[in-house]
Amino acid sequence: MRQAIDLRHAYRLLNHGPTVLVSACHEGRANLMPAAWVMPLDFHPPRVAVVIDKAAYTRQLIEASGRLALSVPCAAQAALVHRLGGYSGATRDKFTPPEGACALDEPQAASPLVAGCVAWLDARLLREPHVEQSYDLFLAEVTAAWADARVFHQGRWTFDQAGDALRTLHHVAGGHFLTPGRALDAGSGEG
Amino acid sequence: MRQAIDLRHAYRLLNHGPTVLVSACHEGRANLMPAAWVMPLDFHPPRVAVVIDKAAYTRQLIEASGRLALSVPCAAQAALVHRLGGYSGATRDKFTPPEGACALDEPQAASPLVAGCVAWLDARLLREPHVEQSYDLFLAEVTAAWADARVFHQGRWTFDQAGDALRTLHHVAGGHFLTPGRALDAGSGEG
Repeated sequence: MRQAIDLRHAYRLLNHGPTVLVSACHEGRANLMPAAWVMPLDFHPPRVAVVIDKAAYTRQLIEASGRLALSVPCAAQAALVHRLGGYSGATRDKFTPPEGACALDEPQAASPLVAGCVAWLDARLLREPHVEQSYDLFLAEVTAAWADARVFHQGRWTFDQAGDALRTLHHVAGGHFLTPGRALDAGSGEG
Repeated sequence: MRQAIDLRHAYRLLNHGPTVLVSACHEGRANLMPAAWVMPLDFHPPRVAVVIDKAAYTRQLIEASGRLALSVPCAAQAALVHRLGGYSGATRDKFTPPEGACALDEPQAASPLVAGCVAWLDARLLREPHVEQSYDLFLAEVTAAWADARVFHQGRWTFDQAGDALRTLHHVAGGHFLTPGRALDAGSGEG
């Protein structure tokens, strides 16, 4: 179901504001963390911005490798996403199921992608030490992107055709998520 | 229906990834623009990050005034939001209904807030010239926040109780929006 998508459409995987799992690896160690504070930063080349706390072990791996990946989880993974935010990968491996996540086998990705998600963006860090230090803000350029063709097709999310389990997660607070419902088209006519 | 909210909860107005209207005013001129690329940046003090293109007239007003506001529009405003992204306020006033938006009378806000929206954040610019120039990225500190009590209550969005017209808008592309549907709670138990 995972299909590579045109990099011109990569921003659309994040444009509607889903919570993501940020992952990285370095010298045989891998980790991931949930992040709701993420957004597109540019269309072409596709760039993203994400906030990563200084205490996060994943941040160490991003800084060491200069790479990160974003996996976009779905409703079926709500408990997993919440749980992964509750402990540090410095002490317990987060890529070991069933407590942790399962990594995808995707040879084109430099950072580990999370299985069961509905979209993925592999990216290289754009080094900006000042905003990293002052705001915990990391900027990155997307080098490859994939989506689950059941829910992302021809540059659009198509959740209605696939069932509630594959809808993206939008965190409010404390493990309370919203998922996308009705779609609206204002693109033609005044509505 | 507009109620001031605790600044500790201000991030929750953006945490689930809604598209916003960014507005500013300077020396009697006001303007606004839709922006999907916006996210919280910190809890306390609440900070936000937003991408604003160099061609945007609103950007000139933000830079001149050092202030901006974010209004969170709802489904009833989908056509308005799309329309406001289609022309420049440099040539036609965007705060004149019916084509444009209507400004709220909120004396506590330094920048104009948009009527009919469901949440509002008034903010002062955190000057970061390098990322402003290189990435069109603007950082700001929220100084006041309000929400429509029909849909945001005790720090949570409560869309199900208010009808579809008041749900937030999450832009995918080309005037195609998703609105929040089902909520999930992963905060207790393993789910």
